Amino acid sequence: MSYAPISEQLDDPETARESGRKKMDWAKEHMPILESLREGFVADQPFAGEVVGMAMHVEAKTAILAETLAEGGAEVAITGCNPLSTHDDVSAALDAHENVTSYARRGVDDEEYYEAIEAVIAHEPTITVDDGMDMVAAIHEDYPELIDTIVGGCEETTTGVHRLRAMDDDGELRYPVFAVNDTPMKRLFDNVHGTGESVLANLAMTTNLSFAGKTIVVAGYGDCGRGLAKKAAGQNAHVVVTEVEPRRALEAHMEGYEVLPMREAAAEADVIVTTTGNRDVVTEEHFEVMKDGVLLANAGHFDVEVNLDQLSDLATSVTDVRDGVREYQMADGRRLNVLAEGRLVNLAGPISLGHPVEVMDQSFGVQAVCVRELVEAGDEYEAGVHDVPDRLDIEVAEVKLEAEGVEIDDLSDAQAEYMGSWEHGT
Amino acid sequence: MSYAPISEQLDDPETARESGRKKMDWAKEHMPILESLREGFVADQPFAGEVVGMAMHVEAKTAILAETLAEGGAEVAITGCNPLSTHDDVSAALDAHENVTSYARRGVDDEEYYEAIEAVIAHEPTITVDDGMDMVAAIHEDYPELIDTIVGGCEETTTGVHRLRAMDDDGELRYPVFAVNDTPMKRLFDNVHGTGESVLANLAMTTNLSFAGKTIVVAGYGDCGRGLAKKAAGQNAHVVVTEVEPRRALEAHMEGYEVLPMREAAAEADVIVTTTGNRDVVTEEHFEVMKDGVLLANAGHFDVEVNLDQLSDLATSVTDVRDGVREYQMADGRRLNVLAEGRLVNLAGPISLGHPVEVMDQSFGVQAVCVRELVEAGDEYEAGVHDVPDRLDIEVAEVKLEAEGVEIDDLSDAQAEYMGSWEHGT
Amino acid sequence: MSYAPISEQLDDPETARESGRKKMDWAKEHMPILESLREGFVADQPFAGEVVGMAMHVEAKTAILAETLAEGGAEVAITGCNPLSTHDDVSAALDAHENVTSYARRGVDDEEYYEAIEAVIAHEPTITVDDGMDMVAAIHEDYPELIDTIVGGCEETTTGVHRLRAMDDDGELRYPVFAVNDTPMKRLFDNVHGTGESVLANLAMTTNLSFAGKTIVVAGYGDCGRGLAKKAAGQNAHVVVTEVEPRRALEAHMEGYEVLPMREAAAEADVIVTTTGNRDVVTEEHFEVMKDGVLLANAGHFDVEVNLDQLSDLATSVTDVRDGVREYQMADGRRLNVLAEGRLVNLAGPISLGHPVEVMDQSFGVQAVCVRELVEAGDEYEAGVHDVPDRLDIEVAEVKLEAEGVEIDDLSDAQAEYMGSWEHGT
Amino acid sequence: MSYAPISEQLDDPETARESGRKKMDWAKEHMPILESLREGFVADQPFAGEVVGMAMHVEAKTAILAETLAEGGAEVAITGCNPLSTHDDVSAALDAHENVTSYARRGVDDEEYYEAIEAVIAHEPTITVDDGMDMVAAIHEDYPELIDTIVGGCEETTTGVHRLRAMDDDGELRYPVFAVNDTPMKRLFDNVHGTGESVLANLAMTTNLSFAGKTIVVAGYGDCGRGLAKKAAGQNAHVVVTEVEPRRALEAHMEGYEVLPMREAAAEADVIVTTTGNRDVVTEEHFEVMKDGVLLANAGHFDVEVNLDQLSDLATSVTDVRDGVREYQMADGRRLNVLAEGRLVNLAGPISLGHPVEVMDQSFGVQAVCVRELVEAGDEYEAGVHDVPDRLDIEVAEVKLEAEGVEIDDLSDAQAEYMGSWEHGT
Repeated sequence: MSYAPISEQLDDPETARESGRKKMDWAKEHMPILESLREGFVADQPFAGEVVGMAMHVEAKTAILAETLAEGGAEVAITGCNPLSTHDDVSAALDAHENVTSYARRGVDDEEYYEAIEAVIAHEPTITVDDGMDMVAAIHEDYPELIDTIVGGCEETTTGVHRLRAMDDDGELRYPVFAVNDTPMKRLFDNVHGTGESVLANLAMTTNLSFAGKTIVVAGYGDCGRGLAKKAAGQNAHVVVTEVEPRRALEAHMEGYEVLPMREAAAEADVIVTTTGNRDVVTEEHFEVMKDGVLLANAGHFDVEVNLDQLSDLATSVTDVRDGVREYQMADGRRLNVLAEGRLVNLAGPISLGHPVEVMDQSFGVQAVCVRELVEAGDEYEAGVHDVPDRLDIEVAEVKLEAEGVEIDDLSDAQAEYMGSWEHGT
Repeated sequence: MSYAPISEQLDDPETARESGRKKMDWAKEHMPILESLREGFVADQPFAGEVVGMAMHVEAKTAILAETLAEGGAEVAITGCNPLSTHDDVSAALDAHENVTSYARRGVDDEEYYEAIEAVIAHEPTITVDDGMDMVAAIHEDYPELIDTIVGGCEETTTGVHRLRAMDDDGELRYPVFAVNDTPMKRLFDNVHGTGESVLANLAMTTNLSFAGKTIVVAGYGDCGRGLAKKAAGQNAHVVVTEVEPRRALEAHMEGYEVLPMREAAAEADVIVTTTGNRDVVTEEHFEVMKDGVLLANAGHFDVEVNLDQLSDLATSVTDVRDGVREYQMADGRRLNVLAEGRLVNLAGPISLGHPVEVMDQSFGVQAVCVRELVEAGDEYEAGVHDVPDRLDIEVAEVKLEAEGVEIDDLSDAQAEYMGSWEHGT
Repeated sequence: MSYAPISEQLDDPETARESGRKKMDWAKEHMPILESLREGFVADQPFAGEVVGMAMHVEAKTAILAETLAEGGAEVAITGCNPLSTHDDVSAALDAHENVTSYARRGVDDEEYYEAIEAVIAHEPTITVDDGMDMVAAIHEDYPELIDTIVGGCEETTTGVHRLRAMDDDGELRYPVFAVNDTPMKRLFDNVHGTGESVLANLAMTTNLSFAGKTIVVAGYGDCGRGLAKKAAGQNAHVVVTEVEPRRALEAHMEGYEVLPMREAAAEADVIVTTTGNRDVVTEEHFEVMKDGVLLANAGHFDVEVNLDQLSDLATSVTDVRDGVREYQMADGRRLNVLAEGRLVNLAGPISLGHPVEVMDQSFGVQAVCVRELVEAGDEYEAGVHDVPDRLDIEVAEVKLEAEGVEIDDLSDAQAEYMGSWEHGT
Repeated sequence: MSYAPISEQLDDPETARESGRKKMDWAKEHMPILESLREGFVADQPFAGEVVGMAMHVEAKTAILAETLAEGGAEVAITGCNPLSTHDDVSAALDAHENVTSYARRGVDDEEYYEAIEAVIAHEPTITVDDGMDMVAAIHEDYPELIDTIVGGCEETTTGVHRLRAMDDDGELRYPVFAVNDTPMKRLFDNVHGTGESVLANLAMTTNLSFAGKTIVVAGYGDCGRGLAKKAAGQNAHVVVTEVEPRRALEAHMEGYEVLPMREAAAEADVIVTTTGNRDVVTEEHFEVMKDGVLLANAGHFDVEVNLDQLSDLATSVTDVRDGVREYQMADGRRLNVLAEGRLVNLAGPISLGHPVEVMDQSFGVQAVCVRELVEAGDEYEAGVHDVPDRLDIEVAEVKLEAEGVEIDDLSDAQAEYMGSWEHGT
């Protein structure tokens, strides 16, 4: 194994471990779902004998998921899914766990990035947990011999699920993968609340600017986009939405937002945030009409939404005017500011901490029960993308409600009968 | 056929027709989707030879749907789906159309209600359009001989679709029915915006009370419930949600609402609105803890959500203190006020006009293209409940966006290729 | 006195009284502040020997104020302050009270309107309670001999206070008048919540249209305008604000609303509501650019905000297309719809009930304690407009909080000392 | 003068200056009001011969105000108004200006803090600009001989104005001071939007927690409190308000928030933020009932709102669990987390940048025109606290609207006449 775990790469791993452990302890305190599941896992050791290979944003919250799986008996090997989102100290603290090996390191180059993925694969995972599908893709492309022993996988993100479904449609996906991203428990909380809040907080703290009275263009009105739009309106921004899907566009319109093509939206924008999961959402024709001082940020998984190559070509100079803010000077005097190099602004910025702890607790709670389900189900799931069964999702919701002290009603038998019947009339 | 069309039942059908026509003209002006579809139907006569049997709320908006189908060549026979929601003048105006026969009359008793349904069935419909499944149920139970010639049906409402799916699960549904209610175009606009806004406006105008500072309990956090909760919060009410499904309960909690079991919610409520589609949501144990002066209203399809039998038994006297408000006097001095007799408060109240015109335009736009789809598809759809195909839903959204003057972006080929691919990486 | 009380004007005063009493009882139930004050007044008879002359919107809520003063020992004479806002049945029920004479009747012409005011003045009021300053103006202009025996007055509305201050600045106001409108207890609740909610509910129920996705132009960003803007946004309207005062315009802009000159706003509007208290806010140049089907409504005190004379001149025909909706047909085919003849849309519409009961309870609570203050204060207040003393306002707030069951903290002595001191440092 | 300017205190002032200048340039770009005023000042030199003594939060935005005054001809001497809010690099960059001397340094102890104030006073200011009244207090207490030559002062903050009014009531304030804090242009933007947004962003980025579904207790419903409450609700928090003033409490209640005494609120809180300007708002009796993991933060000027002495006494141990988060361990196992040592959480936290740039541009625009007014007015203003004249406030609003590209309507002569008249009737 040529690529070394983080502990062997750092000068002072001990100090890093302490710092990382502190971050993990804070996260752990605010992750009641994983804590509740961990208790059961420690007792039952459901993952004994399994190897979990993970490619995720390696920071405190993910570390708690990895640790939770490890304490359930799994051998865990983990690396990052984005070169800028790794916290080295957390990586080191995680690597210190006897059942975990972490290869994640911040700022690796492309070659190292893929070497780290291969280092994880060298552990011969029986289960994969991905955020963006890189692990699944690498195994299918380069290590197909491992597929026979793989029980299944879990995918965290919209983009990853999208790519997996495309792969499945092509008949190329050769083991079962749960679309964790698509469960209500993930989609409605992590995407809507987590992305919205953390993108805004990162923008505010990186720029020291406010949202009141600003025109914020939200590109894409999926779950992330609608969360961001709502939270931005909740900070008194004037929200403009762009979309390509007519029903979503209409939904945004009926919500009271202005809906415009990007060409018109770009000309009005004080801030543009992309959330589409697609490429070339903001391009040359839009750069041309933007106002001086506009802020450009991306909240989608990959850094392809704002076309930075075109922007660089247009710019007469490029300067880092502030930590996390790169200014592109246009020939006509306008200055366009790109945040976090066009990468996920709530993960890759200079003070970024990623999604809030509690929403990740929900997503990772689903991850944890899905990994358990894969192990328990034996051969039940065929190769392909699978929706998370409702009962797992409901289990996680119940754990969370209990942790929050929220009580709800039960359906009476008479009510359940009524809902299952079609014979009652007007 | 003993049951006569409305024109033969009214003393002065001419005056009624004029009044009804005026209401229909107003609605027509604000229904750009149906108007756009009507143009095509008039030209193409897609429904020539078909008989459309409808059981819906017969007021101005529904009348425009019926008229639109009639102008596309259909023979239309229609009656109400709720004894209190019919506007006799609209019914008369509709009945005046050469291709339409309307049997709907306000305030009919149970026997007349079903006679009117049978009168419609006597036209031997080849297509059914229901709001609550009464037409489908009556045909399956009493006129199974018609089923062979029926092309299919459309169902408008949550409750109806719910009952149809139960029927389908039992293997009892013998022709294809589109679940119009479940399309994004219906569910996200009609249920969310239509129900929310019209329930609040009816409550306000019936009681002359305000929402600011009031505690409003919303029973059920489905599409209707979440629309109502959001709109009530938008009028500065303090919103409390009750639910039986953990994920929905959690969603309401994460939205910032208080989530409580009904027993606790009832004790805090100034207003309770039921939106569950289930029975016995508000019962004796809740009546016992309510505050003096509480308002009880139902926004679900049937009048079974508030148990009025139990309430009557508990009351020492019952008085109509106001048009649309019935006061139940409790032995301990508290007064509980029930609106619109526990029926759909936005349809059955004294000044009720039902859902707003524009949201019905969207629902009915989907109805109209679904009827067209049934006719065009021949035998393509098997017996059972069918989701409305996305392309129909998108067609309606595009018509609406165009009518609103909203332009959106198109997906470029490169973008479409990107979204369909799984080979792009970090 | 030639002008007769309502009871002598109606054909069937007894039936009217019963209907009016029912409305008053409903209001009384929801006016805990007046109820609490009434108990004290009945016991103390503070108004014995006083004559209260009132010109207000005579409907159920105002009737409870009049009755409350009457039960405190006052002789009350009352008439309307708007020809269309009187409820004849309530007027009759009020007139039946032994201490009250009511001259208010719906639909009187200009001459009768002023005759009724003079009939009130013939009672030789010692205290005036106005909504729009008509009583004060009539006394100053035509019955100056009464001024010496007048203890003082109360004015309810923004427009009235505005006119009174102008009169005071001219040195023409010859007795003390409390600017009830300007107290936080009135301004922040009645104007903000009462106007906002009731205007929207009236619009919705008169037109059967929805607000979701509509562009609503709010002319004027005073208390009424900002309440309306907020509530409209809370129904998912897209809100555009017009203003003439830069700070208010900036405030609306920072709230996230679009701020435009009326010329541009009118071209985008689906609905325009005026709340400025000024004349000619919507005029010919705006009518010219409006969209087909636009709704025009006024929420200001007088019907001068939309220039209907100009609109009539432009129109090729004028039709009542719906109760409370008058359509002006333009030569180019566009139809402009005016609600409630440009009068206060929440008072003068066909199903209008005015402001919600609870917010009027707050305003009228302040009215009642101000009348008490005038009587108790003797000569303490000089001629001119007076702000309501904070202690009266706070008294009303405390009564309301208690009625709502809301407990709050007390300032400790140490805290009070700290707030009164300037010697504490960093 | 024993206390040295920052440049003489730093090891590497040159590097600090560069870093500070970069921060100032970013701020300058987003402060169009000061930029517009600066142009006039550079041309007119209104402050030639004046010495401006400032005690403010010395970071990038304040630096632009100081620089703007300096470029208008003033000699500026400045220090901090809070030991933790100074940015040394900005202080150094400011000190490099030929007309400015900056004594502000982060982390000074109490003795140094007051030495720095005295160092500023040694410049013999003719105008004072304060944030918290420390400069005014020091001059009145220790350097009364300077008062004769002082033209006047400006005070930025609620707390400072409050203390100045108390001083004025005691007859102790001996020169005129503008209550900049109280202008609509300051109060409605800086307090409402600036505090609200920056407190939430700081909380989010310091803790990595989210607001969705959290119960946030806002202590105090003044401008800061209501801004914070609204913005927190806009992030889907469940907001609870505590107040001591009945009208404000009622306003919060009518807005839809839960209003409770602190004792009950503390037991429900996930987060408590104090905004009262008073002491001992959160004390022992509240610590006793809080939930494990609660977050305590202060947004008021002084660190006296949460009683940390009592908390320390109750705690069995105190640990910094995270940058900016101090955990107090209770004997019963609960952990209470205090942010930023109970100081202004948006100024004193580890990544704090203070209020957003744009809102400070508005406040500081008013500051700048007030300083100009003091110079231009000669002896017009008597000793005491003065409201900022409306025309200055409006001037700033107009500059801002122009910078934002917002056009508004003008009052026509006929409208102005109408508004000034009291003779128009119904």
